[in-house]
Amino acid sequence: MKYHSAIIGAGSAGLTVAIGLAGLGKQVVVIEKNHVGGDCTNVGCIPSKLLIHLANDAKDLTTSEIFARVRAKRDELRDEEDHWLKSQENIKFIKGEAKFIANDSLNVITETETITIKAENIIIASGSSPIIIPIKGLPIERTLTNENLFDLENLPKHIAIVGAGVIGCEMAFAFNKLGSEVSLIDLAPRILAPLEPEVAELILNRLESLGVKVYTAAKGKFYDQSSNNLVLDSNGNDITLEKVDKVLLAIGRRPNLDLDLEKAGIEYDRRGIPTNKVHETNMENIYAIGDVDYEPSSAFTHSANAQGRRLAQKLAFPYLPIGREPTYPSAVFTSPEVAQVGLTLAKLKQKYHEKLIKTERFELAKTDRAFTQDLKEGFILIHALRLTGRIVSATIVAPNASEMIPILSYAVNNKVSMYKLSDLVFPYPSLSEGMKKAADSFKFATLANLKNELGVYLRYRLAQAKNEELSG
Amino acid sequence: MKYHSAIIGAGSAGLTVAIGLAGLGKQVVVIEKNHVGGDCTNVGCIPSKLLIHLANDAKDLTTSEIFARVRAKRDELRDEEDHWLKSQENIKFIKGEAKFIANDSLNVITETETITIKAENIIIASGSSPIIIPIKGLPIERTLTNENLFDLENLPKHIAIVGAGVIGCEMAFAFNKLGSEVSLIDLAPRILAPLEPEVAELILNRLESLGVKVYTAAKGKFYDQSSNNLVLDSNGNDITLEKVDKVLLAIGRRPNLDLDLEKAGIEYDRRGIPTNKVHETNMENIYAIGDVDYEPSSAFTHSANAQGRRLAQKLAFPYLPIGREPTYPSAVFTSPEVAQVGLTLAKLKQKYHEKLIKTERFELAKTDRAFTQDLKEGFILIHALRLTGRIVSATIVAPNASEMIPILSYAVNNKVSMYKLSDLVFPYPSLSEGMKKAADSFKFATLANLKNELGVYLRYRLAQAKNEELSG
Repeated sequence: MKYHSAIIGAGSAGLTVAIGLAGLGKQVVVIEKNHVGGDCTNVGCIPSKLLIHLANDAKDLTTSEIFARVRAKRDELRDEEDHWLKSQENIKFIKGEAKFIANDSLNVITETETITIKAENIIIASGSSPIIIPIKGLPIERTLTNENLFDLENLPKHIAIVGAGVIGCEMAFAFNKLGSEVSLIDLAPRILAPLEPEVAELILNRLESLGVKVYTAAKGKFYDQSSNNLVLDSNGNDITLEKVDKVLLAIGRRPNLDLDLEKAGIEYDRRGIPTNKVHETNMENIYAIGDVDYEPSSAFTHSANAQGRRLAQKLAFPYLPIGREPTYPSAVFTSPEVAQVGLTLAKLKQKYHEKLIKTERFELAKTDRAFTQDLKEGFILIHALRLTGRIVSATIVAPNASEMIPILSYAVNNKVSMYKLSDLVFPYPSLSEGMKKAADSFKFATLANLKNELGVYLRYRLAQAKNEELSG
Repeated sequence: MKYHSAIIGAGSAGLTVAIGLAGLGKQVVVIEKNHVGGDCTNVGCIPSKLLIHLANDAKDLTTSEIFARVRAKRDELRDEEDHWLKSQENIKFIKGEAKFIANDSLNVITETETITIKAENIIIASGSSPIIIPIKGLPIERTLTNENLFDLENLPKHIAIVGAGVIGCEMAFAFNKLGSEVSLIDLAPRILAPLEPEVAELILNRLESLGVKVYTAAKGKFYDQSSNNLVLDSNGNDITLEKVDKVLLAIGRRPNLDLDLEKAGIEYDRRGIPTNKVHETNMENIYAIGDVDYEPSSAFTHSANAQGRRLAQKLAFPYLPIGREPTYPSAVFTSPEVAQVGLTLAKLKQKYHEKLIKTERFELAKTDRAFTQDLKEGFILIHALRLTGRIVSATIVAPNASEMIPILSYAVNNKVSMYKLSDLVFPYPSLSEGMKKAADSFKFATLANLKNELGVYLRYRLAQAKNEELSG
């Protein structure tokens, strides 16, 4: 029997395709090496957000009880997903490791046997794993990654987190709240490198005001097992962190490519598998979505999910057109939260002449909602194209930024302008009103200076159009 | 000297017009009987949201300290607004009571004199006051309205709130949290009459689970000063509430019309002053905005504000077109919050044939964010037109509903469809994802049943178009 589709990986990306295709009557096989639900359910978003929530709200639980609760809730969800998946018609589930043997077939190595599978389409949704750069002297039992972090039974007294990206910063807040001493270390000169510098500045201040020690432009040099000291190298100088009982490595992720891709002729490099606009690899009928895809924009649960939906549609209805891939929002569950959609200003400047970009920043503290909530920090940052006011990217730093970003995500994806945003009425009092104030500021500044704005726009926009013509 | 505009009332509506016009160089006079900032700053949104916030978060303060803090913060904001207004160029501020003497002139009665003012335009933004229906035997010192509520020095042991509308419900949660025994009474058969019945049901359950006693289809009959008992009349039966020390009347608002409107020939009735699409009364160059306007949609700070902006534009740039008045969202700061935009289903059915409306309700508990936050209740309710999927109204019940509604407010005001909403990617995990799930449900149900949906749409939509033609 030849399946309609074989899906490698039962995480957010793979499950979405599987469910979509099975629902349309296609026979699919899903192969998963570890647990159903993938990283998100098992060692990612779900346990980390449970931990963050309980760290903040479960004042009646001990830290050990909190860790146990995180695992219990996580397992509950996992079992539910597992049970649900295995009861689906049209989905065959195999727990095992997939290896390509040709461009339409896989071997699946299970605990007891090797099964050969043939499918018209193969979807690689094998996800990613934490990058591990060993620190000299650091024993394995003191090393954490997201994969064993949630197995902790007791709170570390002092946790060093290597990598001040999204996971590193989220966990720095959570462990600080739980009561650990937290040291946060990054090789880069600033934390949260993929986000706007204004975000990094605010989150850094927040972390430091909570007592987290942050070391940028630094890396782990060695760990002394007799004293439990972790020594960092910061521009050639040693910094000693005393009595570190656990080191969490949150340096980054690498795609899971150990699938004998060569046997199917699939091109890839260490960043992942390149794909075209419909998620197809260089080989016809072989697709890659989610973390294993080359594009960093795919590395969220919601984007993996969105790609899964797109691909299910493409495979089930090959003659229906499939739109441009959207610009995905992202959210960071620090305190306050950060949400972003579109490129940072630095990257926007590679796309548009910098004179074409007009940035509005509005401090949330100036809203009446912040006044009534005693909220002193946070902002809304919007980058728009000059004159036309088209919103091209936005960042929110606020207690519920993840719930506030959808309107700006809609704006970026649907070319909504600052004028249109300025016309929208927001409920009073709300922090979201800050968006309107940012849009008002753009509108009034532009209208007051229309002739000049028009001149600048024509000069740089036309120049750019010409460049695009020459280069394309 | 004849002013460009005379504005009666320095609340949200009046101040917005004043600031807008003054900024454009027009000479305006603002007349205010009480405090700058109007009800919102002084006895409305600001102190009530301060109280709600402090009731929930200021665990280190006594209740008397909380009331004092509310007043101090409120006064801080009032003083700021007051100082700011009085320092504005082009704005003359007069504290006093305005009375029309002709259709272009007012007398302003101040503490020391009566000033006659002439203006090309007169804007009535005099706001509203609480409706007071006296309860037999209830002494004045035990009677509260929003106007003296925030003057409380000590927490009532038992507060009876008459009127289970927005203010009544918000204050029921706040005083319950502060530690009062709370009884909530309404004449109507359900609480929160202007909102969807599903909202009333959830909020009622929440109130009762917190220990608030709710009496619907009931009214205050008499108060016995010797025992401090409040006796209610419920369908002819007496219900005795024991030892009630304060009674908050939150029955509704009446427009402030004591302005000798007849002398200018302005039409009005007890519901307010009717206006046309550009907020003009029956008299040319006399406008009415905010709570004093006839339309209940004007009775929010944000809608008063929006009307102020529209009117400032109309008066400053009379030849520019002014768009249709938007559909305003509303927010209720109960726990959880409620936010709504557009008509309730009951009212939608007066506008569209009920077969044309398709309702999607998504329980937030089914989102992964709710799972990680241990959130058990709340929902997203969207009414859309069948087939086309045009979103016509929506309600959210969630901890931060007021920050989540903007995307749905945009949708209702810009004819965004469920298909479009289904295409939007939301950050994971978020409660807002529930909107996408609601939209997905609509989309899949419609696509699976397209022929039937098309038939129903054509049948009822065409019938309606025909009716509209006949009637209009």
